Amino acid sequence: MALIVQKFGGSSVADKERVMRVANRIVDTYKEGNSVVVAVSAQGDTTDDLIAKAQEINPNASKREMDMLLSTGEQISIALLAMAIESLGYPVVSLTGRQAGIKCDSNYGSAKIDNIQVQRLKNELDSKRIVIVAGFQGINKADDVVTLGRGGSDTTAVALAAALGADVCEIFTDVEGVYTTDPRIVKEAKKLDDISYDEMLELASLGANVLHNRSVEMAKKYNVNLVVRSSFNREPGTVVKEVNSVEKMLVRGVTRDNDVARIALLGIEDAPGEAFKIFSLLAKHGINVDIILQSIGRDTKDISFTVTESNLDKAIKLLEEKKDYIGYHELKQRSDVSKVSIVGAGMVNNPGVAAQMFEALYDAGINIHMISTSEIKVSVLVNSKNAERAVAAIHDKFHLAD
Amino acid sequence: MALIVQKFGGSSVADKERVMRVANRIVDTYKEGNSVVVAVSAQGDTTDDLIAKAQEINPNASKREMDMLLSTGEQISIALLAMAIESLGYPVVSLTGRQAGIKCDSNYGSAKIDNIQVQRLKNELDSKRIVIVAGFQGINKADDVVTLGRGGSDTTAVALAAALGADVCEIFTDVEGVYTTDPRIVKEAKKLDDISYDEMLELASLGANVLHNRSVEMAKKYNVNLVVRSSFNREPGTVVKEVNSVEKMLVRGVTRDNDVARIALLGIEDAPGEAFKIFSLLAKHGINVDIILQSIGRDTKDISFTVTESNLDKAIKLLEEKKDYIGYHELKQRSDVSKVSIVGAGMVNNPGVAAQMFEALYDAGINIHMISTSEIKVSVLVNSKNAERAVAAIHDKFHLAD
Repeated sequence: MALIVQKFGGSSVADKERVMRVANRIVDTYKEGNSVVVAVSAQGDTTDDLIAKAQEINPNASKREMDMLLSTGEQISIALLAMAIESLGYPVVSLTGRQAGIKCDSNYGSAKIDNIQVQRLKNELDSKRIVIVAGFQGINKADDVVTLGRGGSDTTAVALAAALGADVCEIFTDVEGVYTTDPRIVKEAKKLDDISYDEMLELASLGANVLHNRSVEMAKKYNVNLVVRSSFNREPGTVVKEVNSVEKMLVRGVTRDNDVARIALLGIEDAPGEAFKIFSLLAKHGINVDIILQSIGRDTKDISFTVTESNLDKAIKLLEEKKDYIGYHELKQRSDVSKVSIVGAGMVNNPGVAAQMFEALYDAGINIHMISTSEIKVSVLVNSKNAERAVAAIHDKFHLAD
Repeated sequence: MALIVQKFGGSSVADKERVMRVANRIVDTYKEGNSVVVAVSAQGDTTDDLIAKAQEINPNASKREMDMLLSTGEQISIALLAMAIESLGYPVVSLTGRQAGIKCDSNYGSAKIDNIQVQRLKNELDSKRIVIVAGFQGINKADDVVTLGRGGSDTTAVALAAALGADVCEIFTDVEGVYTTDPRIVKEAKKLDDISYDEMLELASLGANVLHNRSVEMAKKYNVNLVVRSSFNREPGTVVKEVNSVEKMLVRGVTRDNDVARIALLGIEDAPGEAFKIFSLLAKHGINVDIILQSIGRDTKDISFTVTESNLDKAIKLLEEKKDYIGYHELKQRSDVSKVSIVGAGMVNNPGVAAQMFEALYDAGINIHMISTSEIKVSVLVNSKNAERAVAAIHDKFHLAD
């Protein structure tokens, strides 16, 4: 007799067989006596198809009209999923983000949820209906549809769970949970039974691709019990929750992120304010910088940093335009690099962990370009061609398959 | 400086070229200094594709979920059309039926518009925006999306024109206006410059396929100036309006309807209440009956009537089940029949018109199975294989090409 929020992604509802499978899964949860609210994404490639349609007509369409267009993808999903549940003979109702009371700010294309007015949701649950909610969307104060941007459906699910005080929020994916590393790279990768919010946040932002950061942050903030599990089997998955420090493992996972490019500015005058000039310029143009490294030469210094590959050209153009303002001698760039990271909440008290990681890379003959550390992670930049070997070597070094 | 409502159907926005052409047409109207509100249908086969998707999953899906699904078709259209207008550099906003304030009753799948709350529409027009409204849809008191059923987008356009007090409501179609008969059958068919609401109503219900009856009824009720014109050229089209009796022409048009089947019940006891039994039975099961003919034999009578072909099997099944209750001797059916009709508001005072029609058919050697007349029309049932010849003969007889 629990209140359970479930989230199914686009690949889980890509065709009629999968829609029926998801419907059966939802009904099974309902039949156990639970109240069930489901957030669902657009089917398979629907969103990409809609974007392509828009591009054909207007490559610079306003974000408002893009949201009007894209939000239909989830509306189609919820209707079809509700019909599938009807065919199984269970009471169900589909709700758009607006109907589910999801109130957002007005940032078309990347809106944030302000609050959820749960009256209708509660009424439907009181009527013993399974409630299917369109993920990725809400309504703003102007009464317009807005979409939540990347990872939006995960965020919808967690927000619904928080607003309704759900017992658990189950995120169904095409993997069985959170792994010590990508099983496609390292066969011995092990599924984790549980992981802390902070660890999950590091893993998510490091390219683990299981849960979007926004949803994990929200789960942490509202203490929502998150479970990541497979939509293809009944395995229990990985629980994401607040973990006591005594349970904190040294290293929980190894990740790889290929969407990285490095920019180096060489021969910068060794004077105060240089770093400020560079990074405020990039921030002003919406370019996020990840790892930053500064080295001091004789009279000058070099600053290198990483950006996502999609931001590389824009960043280069900006820096070249402002060459005189910044005052550097030479600009170098390379995008054949990957970021390999280890994450673990126990690391903070174990400075030897980073050294062990470097040792694994040394043993494997892999050169490190940059290093960045936080309380619960260590990241290194290596050549992309070495990235998978690096992950495997580190995974082995920390005995994560045991 | 007029307020103009325009309606574009699904074929007018079927692909990106057509969307751009429609966008240009709308902008031209706007550039002349007019306020423009546009109702638009789902693109091309979108609605059929969505229905097919639903059928695959649940052939008996609830109408509520069907409406949730189908309403996305128009939402896609309005977003794409708005983007096209944005690309031309003009201010535009797309609105769903709900955002446009279209309040409906709760008959999912065939809702009627209760009223239109025009505040947002007026605000957008005051801001000098072109307003693109999703046709075919509205919102009910339960805050659910409902669709308006067949001809829904025409109805949306007329309702918007009525609510806003528009100067004219232009219905763009793939024909140049209302013709004296189907130009695909009779090459000499002539476009009418104007036609009365009542004549248009008869033509619409007789299979002229230009405007849906509901929209004409609403236009008549609220005295909306309707214009039917081509989306492919700039010809003025046909004006549908209240016409003075002095202007009433004898015969305005000839129509053909192939979606007709005849049922004959032979050997019914000649007693009161028989017709009631038959037609209340059919009405109770939602079967509309068109032409009814009753003939008296010696001790018994025969009753024949027409239904649409889609209702034929259901009607036959009902009548066979109730054979003892109705008390007839034999049931006959045929679906190889067509209804050919002439329409003209002047007919009411000219009883000779029907005779002229029969003469044309006699000269062409075409047998008449049934006859039905109203104040402004005469319909006959003929073999389907003769229908086109019948239309041509009648069109010629009344010199409609002159």
